[in-house]
Amino acid sequence: MKTGTAAARRLTKRTSCLTRKPQIHSSKADAPKPTPSAAVLTVSDSCARGDRDDASGAAVAELLTQHNFSVVATEIVPDELLSIQKALALLAEEAPLVVTTGGTGITTRDVTPEATRAVCERLVEGIPERMRSEGAKKTPLAALSRGLCGIRGKSLILNLPGSPKGAIESLEAVIGLLPHMLQLLAGNTAHGG
Amino acid sequence: MKTGTAAARRLTKRTSCLTRKPQIHSSKADAPKPTPSAAVLTVSDSCARGDRDDASGAAVAELLTQHNFSVVATEIVPDELLSIQKALALLAEEAPLVVTTGGTGITTRDVTPEATRAVCERLVEGIPERMRSEGAKKTPLAALSRGLCGIRGKSLILNLPGSPKGAIESLEAVIGLLPHMLQLLAGNTAHGG
Amino acid sequence: MKTGTAAARRLTKRTSCLTRKPQIHSSKADAPKPTPSAAVLTVSDSCARGDRDDASGAAVAELLTQHNFSVVATEIVPDELLSIQKALALLAEEAPLVVTTGGTGITTRDVTPEATRAVCERLVEGIPERMRSEGAKKTPLAALSRGLCGIRGKSLILNLPGSPKGAIESLEAVIGLLPHMLQLLAGNTAHGG
Repeated sequence: MKTGTAAARRLTKRTSCLTRKPQIHSSKADAPKPTPSAAVLTVSDSCARGDRDDASGAAVAELLTQHNFSVVATEIVPDELLSIQKALALLAEEAPLVVTTGGTGITTRDVTPEATRAVCERLVEGIPERMRSEGAKKTPLAALSRGLCGIRGKSLILNLPGSPKGAIESLEAVIGLLPHMLQLLAGNTAHGG
Repeated sequence: MKTGTAAARRLTKRTSCLTRKPQIHSSKADAPKPTPSAAVLTVSDSCARGDRDDASGAAVAELLTQHNFSVVATEIVPDELLSIQKALALLAEEAPLVVTTGGTGITTRDVTPEATRAVCERLVEGIPERMRSEGAKKTPLAALSRGLCGIRGKSLILNLPGSPKGAIESLEAVIGLLPHMLQLLAGNTAHGG
Repeated sequence: MKTGTAAARRLTKRTSCLTRKPQIHSSKADAPKPTPSAAVLTVSDSCARGDRDDASGAAVAELLTQHNFSVVATEIVPDELLSIQKALALLAEEAPLVVTTGGTGITTRDVTPEATRAVCERLVEGIPERMRSEGAKKTPLAALSRGLCGIRGKSLILNLPGSPKGAIESLEAVIGLLPHMLQLLAGNTAHGG
């Protein structure tokens, strides 16, 4: 949907808040496995204001890169329903996987799940169930994470908690399932149908 | 809602794609326990086209029969939202239990949960939770099953995955709960109220 | 939102069906920890008619009191969607925690979760998940409990089953999380943002 130049500009602009650049593997041509693209959306009032470094977004981007994803866009928005929805809709056009961090808790500002639900046609309830059941092995507070996993068109949106530790642990609980899910959504694997 | 003749015609017509007839126990008269009726809806593009035998629907019907259910109707529809909704609504008039197989995954054609949600007034979230948590003991892919369990009027609708193995394993995880659920819905067991 | 006098009148009137008064600790002044307020809503046709004592509401109020909550209001309503919604909305103005008992099952009269969903802006899915997974250690019937946990404004609403045993066991599964949740909702703990 975007021209190469526009996408590149967007990437540069969007990573402006990242403390370090994600190591993007440009292994499309020579690698045996395809490198799926991913976008990272940080939902955080304080980071959007520039009051704090986006440690969680950076950590999520790094873990995705380690798992052979190519992080093609990162963005930071405040905890505002419409801002999150708009960013999710745009990023879902740029990448088949959009991973968010932040806004999944229960304070009045936490509305990332509501924004995700609003832009997704379908939800995959088993993914947050798995993140919480894995998380519960470490802390009962995992039950408070309201993050969703949903499908918008052919893109998958995954909500992670806002703390770097919570985000990484939640992502690790399901990252092994993501490549297969993206293949199913891309139509590369037969529908049971 | 249907006359006996119409219901019989429907059964004959609907089982046309079944590879073998379910062994219906007509033990209504002599059995000590009541035989609850069940309908089986196969949601599958390829089976609806006649490109493939409905192995899952047949397997589900057989397992239900083994557990003392009387399978009174089977039907096959393609993975189309409105076709599934219409079939669910009709079958829920014919049987207090409607079990579907297929369309619970995450490909763009998988919309059985959305159709189920649309025709149900209430959902029973603990049933898919249990199917997934039992399934997770065998494969992490169980997390991708989006099947629901819902209530439409006095009928229970249960979504199972599309593969015969997945359908049977999911059904086995909850089949022990179904007779009690049907009695509650029929009003035969006291409401806590 | 209510004057002290009106709230006191409401408490007196509402506890009329309680078999025993909850022992309210008025430790606000001298206790080191704050005493969060809680309201208990019993959803039960038979108790609303006066056909039966509200053993569950009393047991829930007692357990809350033992955990340092101050039960400031109790009320009993029949299993009617609008009655439950109205009571939830009123009680959520009086206390940051509203605990319901009853109406979470699958009979046609069980609509407490639907009423809760209707008055809440956000749901906390991990809480009922935890109540069911803990309950499943004792009985597979725990899967049939459809109780929700939701947020209305700055108040938390928690649905428990209708039997005293089910209500107490479900509450015990999550009561340790409630003080932290109420602090988050009150804005006393930093949002991750």
